[in-house]
Amino acid sequence: MAEGDSMRVAVIGGGQLARMMVPAAINLGIDLRVLAESEGMSADLAATDVGDYRNVDKVLQFCSTADVVTFDHEHVPQAVLHALVDAGLAVHPGPDALLAAQDKLHMRAALTGLGIPVPRWAAVADSAELATFLEQNNGAAVVKTARGGYDGKGVRIVRAATEADDWFAALAEDGNGGSLLAEELVDFRRELAQSVARRPSGQVAAWSAVESIQRDGVCAEVIAPAPGLDPELARVAADIATAIAEALNVTGVLAVELFETADGRILVNELAMRPHNSGHWSIEGSVTSQFEQHLRAVLDLPLGDTAPVAGWTVMVNILGGPTTGTMADRYQNAFAAFPGVKIHNYGKDPRPGRKVGHVTAMGDDLDTVLHEARAMAALFGD
Amino acid sequence: MAEGDSMRVAVIGGGQLARMMVPAAINLGIDLRVLAESEGMSADLAATDVGDYRNVDKVLQFCSTADVVTFDHEHVPQAVLHALVDAGLAVHPGPDALLAAQDKLHMRAALTGLGIPVPRWAAVADSAELATFLEQNNGAAVVKTARGGYDGKGVRIVRAATEADDWFAALAEDGNGGSLLAEELVDFRRELAQSVARRPSGQVAAWSAVESIQRDGVCAEVIAPAPGLDPELARVAADIATAIAEALNVTGVLAVELFETADGRILVNELAMRPHNSGHWSIEGSVTSQFEQHLRAVLDLPLGDTAPVAGWTVMVNILGGPTTGTMADRYQNAFAAFPGVKIHNYGKDPRPGRKVGHVTAMGDDLDTVLHEARAMAALFGD
Repeated sequence: MAEGDSMRVAVIGGGQLARMMVPAAINLGIDLRVLAESEGMSADLAATDVGDYRNVDKVLQFCSTADVVTFDHEHVPQAVLHALVDAGLAVHPGPDALLAAQDKLHMRAALTGLGIPVPRWAAVADSAELATFLEQNNGAAVVKTARGGYDGKGVRIVRAATEADDWFAALAEDGNGGSLLAEELVDFRRELAQSVARRPSGQVAAWSAVESIQRDGVCAEVIAPAPGLDPELARVAADIATAIAEALNVTGVLAVELFETADGRILVNELAMRPHNSGHWSIEGSVTSQFEQHLRAVLDLPLGDTAPVAGWTVMVNILGGPTTGTMADRYQNAFAAFPGVKIHNYGKDPRPGRKVGHVTAMGDDLDTVLHEARAMAALFGD
Repeated sequence: MAEGDSMRVAVIGGGQLARMMVPAAINLGIDLRVLAESEGMSADLAATDVGDYRNVDKVLQFCSTADVVTFDHEHVPQAVLHALVDAGLAVHPGPDALLAAQDKLHMRAALTGLGIPVPRWAAVADSAELATFLEQNNGAAVVKTARGGYDGKGVRIVRAATEADDWFAALAEDGNGGSLLAEELVDFRRELAQSVARRPSGQVAAWSAVESIQRDGVCAEVIAPAPGLDPELARVAADIATAIAEALNVTGVLAVELFETADGRILVNELAMRPHNSGHWSIEGSVTSQFEQHLRAVLDLPLGDTAPVAGWTVMVNILGGPTTGTMADRYQNAFAAFPGVKIHNYGKDPRPGRKVGHVTAMGDDLDTVLHEARAMAALFGD
């Protein structure tokens, strides 16, 4: 710990989100401590310990000297979260808020209870209930496992009730019973994302709503702000995210994935209670990045300005990475071709479909910015 | 080391310049290793070893696995630098270039030999020679020790030849003989700084020339770009820095401190061969920060775009820091008052005159930006 530091934040999980908190922590003079799942994780530089986030004793010991505990992911079990709270630690977001990010059925029920617009949905316990849902929804549904899904995993479009039989069988084997989430197949124009940050003492700050372009269920590109978004819908998106943050008592960054429907409505798709891929553009593109804002928020410090820095910011993920060699092997070509595009290399070995980095381009002409970001990312992907 | 990393940079010195290289290294996926002078230094997060930079064996051992060796400061002795080169390590900047940043007499002679405009100067070995210089220069001179000065230390304005007797005596005691540097007292309108970066393979990139405002010989504020600078003088400043970088074979960032004289000339004051206080504005204010550019340059990677991100960027140093408590104790007030101003907390204990951090503000109206940066910095300084 550097001599003048005085705030210590413990982060559970050592992936790229923890890694990208490090620059913000350095600027703010925060002593960031990361509990990584294993050696050689993305946030290795700040990883001060390695251990299992499901192990109550390990997590308690790791967090014991922290002013605040926060997360790289949402998979820490409720029992561990409650043990941290019971030990008197400041946990942001807290267990009750996180439950809505951990369990999609809980999330849908909570949002419906708040009057937040969501797709038509039902908890379906077996194929008969799914058949009923299909009948009522034009014969198609998006079926999701309530827990454990991410990046398109645990999500399936079904048109026959038998198409989820394996998941029902798995639920039965668990011994927990439980249901799947069935949702209408939304006729959407595009996907949006709206991030906000909220302090324990109540202040909320919203970034511009962005357009999020998915490929194979994984975020591929983000355009900030969402091009041509009706200002009224932008207001609705910000209001929805603010209402969710306040009602669920979310602390830190909340990212709300949204559908802009073909008939001009905004519906909530998913929630994430941490910095999110749809907000990586903010590192260069906003006066305050989502990583700095998350640290400010969990420490209950006044939030930073969320204004954009440029007319357009485009973030493109590097999915999979080079088929031969490392990302760094491509730097000579990529940097020479696009001197104004910024790279974020997560320090992970390339693997098909894996998020190994992203690039960000900024400027006043959207077509140019899109081209530069896509072309630079492509140089790392073949 | 994270699994996908492949470039390792060793930094000798663990001050705030090494600290501010860390965010850039994280983004680029560079494994940055810092040899700090002691525990608890500013770059503690990346400090992988502690030791004396004057100890050849220690430095050689620390650097042995690095792809490139670079520096937080210019105090590494020539014998150590040459030992690194002799061991086959890539040292950037190299010993010959660094000599001009280590020895002001060497620097003045080198620049004069290159035809670069500098103040009138002489090497003065005793008070008689200083008396002659004073006679020839209107009875006033700036006298500097050739080595070891920084932030106004080792610099004295004299009007009588006896006023440097203590320094002459110290030189004689050294047993090395040697001289002081005497310079004309330049009638300058203001001080400017011009930074460039240069790769070993030759590419040079320049940022905008900036205005640097000193107080008590220490950089207090930087305005980027230099307000109202004649475009012809801006071109001269960039050409001078480029010429120096090329002629002295500087690799990495070169910062050239300049006088804009009352009669409209540009003269070189000092050189620094590393990221420099006059370039901290570039962290937020330029597409490519001086810290990222330094890493690109020393790794011989194509340089990034140096365009400004906003109309005006103002950097104000936090000198000394709070008289009571820590910088973090002031965050509630400061962040609430100036949500758009960025803080860089170097993690150092406050001490009169010590650079403990800086703030950066950006925008289109210079008066507003200046006010915000100065007022935010002031909140940390009383």
